[in-house]
Amino acid sequence: MHNPDHSDHGRDVSAGEVLAPYLHARAADFLRGLRLHAESGSDTAGSEEAARTLRGAARRISGTLHTFRPLLDTAWADQLRTELAWLSGTLALEQACTSRLVRLVDALSRLSSGTGTGHGGGPVPAARGSEAAGLTVGAARAGALLERQLTLARTRAHSASLQALGSARFHAVADAVALLASEVPLGPVGAAPAIEVLDGPAEVAERRLLDAVAALPLTRAAHPYNADALALAAGEGQDAPWHQTRLLLRLHRYACEALHTGGEPHSVLYEAARALDRHRDAAEAATAAATAARTPRIAPATAYALGVLHADQRHEVEAARFAFQRAWRRTTAPVP
Amino acid sequence: MHNPDHSDHGRDVSAGEVLAPYLHARAADFLRGLRLHAESGSDTAGSEEAARTLRGAARRISGTLHTFRPLLDTAWADQLRTELAWLSGTLALEQACTSRLVRLVDALSRLSSGTGTGHGGGPVPAARGSEAAGLTVGAARAGALLERQLTLARTRAHSASLQALGSARFHAVADAVALLASEVPLGPVGAAPAIEVLDGPAEVAERRLLDAVAALPLTRAAHPYNADALALAAGEGQDAPWHQTRLLLRLHRYACEALHTGGEPHSVLYEAARALDRHRDAAEAATAAATAARTPRIAPATAYALGVLHADQRHEVEAARFAFQRAWRRTTAPVP
Repeated sequence: MHNPDHSDHGRDVSAGEVLAPYLHARAADFLRGLRLHAESGSDTAGSEEAARTLRGAARRISGTLHTFRPLLDTAWADQLRTELAWLSGTLALEQACTSRLVRLVDALSRLSSGTGTGHGGGPVPAARGSEAAGLTVGAARAGALLERQLTLARTRAHSASLQALGSARFHAVADAVALLASEVPLGPVGAAPAIEVLDGPAEVAERRLLDAVAALPLTRAAHPYNADALALAAGEGQDAPWHQTRLLLRLHRYACEALHTGGEPHSVLYEAARALDRHRDAAEAATAAATAARTPRIAPATAYALGVLHADQRHEVEAARFAFQRAWRRTTAPVP
Repeated sequence: MHNPDHSDHGRDVSAGEVLAPYLHARAADFLRGLRLHAESGSDTAGSEEAARTLRGAARRISGTLHTFRPLLDTAWADQLRTELAWLSGTLALEQACTSRLVRLVDALSRLSSGTGTGHGGGPVPAARGSEAAGLTVGAARAGALLERQLTLARTRAHSASLQALGSARFHAVADAVALLASEVPLGPVGAAPAIEVLDGPAEVAERRLLDAVAALPLTRAAHPYNADALALAAGEGQDAPWHQTRLLLRLHRYACEALHTGGEPHSVLYEAARALDRHRDAAEAATAAATAARTPRIAPATAYALGVLHADQRHEVEAARFAFQRAWRRTTAPVP
């Protein structure tokens, strides 16, 4: 990881002047998302695009307020951050249900089809004896069960999103972001020269990330098929440091974005971030399979297919850890 | 793979004279296994050791008769090979049931415990919320079910072994092997100089192995977490070429042993062979889990744990393919 290039942050440029264009631009993105939402009406693709834009902007504003808090009007920053966290959390749920369902249905279809995911060769007939037939029946029932449960959750999340976007609370957030599009409320330190006060907060964000990565079992993760992620009862406990790293990596990336205004930061960090997104998605999909398996009165064949699916998604969790360590080793990070 | 060092197989040494010491020694091993069996009585460890010795000798004799058939009295070789295959197949079943049960119970315990298999750190409490608790109950019931089923199968296999070892058919095999300990029935070609006729059959065995390996999806297997082995419905179909390679690798190894009398062949081939053994064991354990899941009237929690176990063992199948390709790349084999 390189330190940001501050060649243009001389003594004559204040920290606030460096941060403001980034926050203005993200606030403008947010307002664009708002317009998209107003225009989308019943167009599903349009309203998904609107929610994605709003969430992306909200995450970046919130991250910047967090990292560069010492330079800002802290009371304002803390207040806006809380509200943005509420908003992006609410908006994220619907998309999470959709992508979780897609992930689980795809996995079930891969598991119960007769073909591998790769290397040529024609399709293999789907049913090979009773083993495959049993799984096919169970997989179909498991798929239907998951579809019912996740569609219901998605419908609820959709209503919650619509309600949030129509609420007075949301209008207050939108007003605050509209102000941010033209003015950033700085604290006293925000007026100091960028070269003196901007690196500190960014370095804190990077240091927290490096410490979190250093605490991950990366050597273990570099051994393919270590089966660590398959210690199912330890699931949430063992996943937490990876989820935390995902959030810290995001904060670090946004800090890089804010300081390299306009420049694309290290593509390898994006790759590492994608691996951690996949880690989170697979872990949550595994939990959804386990939850579905606790539905009362399901058939044993359905429970069996859900068990296969649960382990399959934990296998994906392990694969994501492997991918993360591989991407991370390509960063130039001076891991302590 | 190196060609065997035939420096001592000059024109003055016949092929039969090279093969005979190896077959004599393996026949002596067989007879030693027989004595161990007679002496073991109700000593389980002793009778397992006896069965292992008998099987190892039977496999090597049978493999040598197969590979070097053109040099031998073919009618005798074919007849003895059939009988040895019957014997080692019968003796293998009991051990297979035992090791399958151990493998499955270990996997269940790993899956339902709260700890990963590796990297330090104290044990994690086993039950983390209802997800883990549900799996723990299911795993215990699945373990009990597998234990019942595999113990029954093992008891049957044990009776079948004892019956086989007491049969007239077995005594005829033992007599044939006792003769082999002092004399090898050769065909006309067996009297020809070793240098002229010994390499051909060994090269055929090696060529069949190389062809089988070349047809395996090794490039795919080299990508960790390719999830190929998790296309469950294709299970048996996709496993067959690997199982076949396992048998051909064994024949090749025995041919190397026979020609390097006394020398240990390439350790890397042993490693590749171990990976294929593990591949076979995991594939069969996965099938046993799937079979247990079809037991009528099992609880959904039991079926769920068996589904997790099935996928876990298929994950092991994939891991074994990865290990095989890694070991194989270290051979000096001129893969065509």
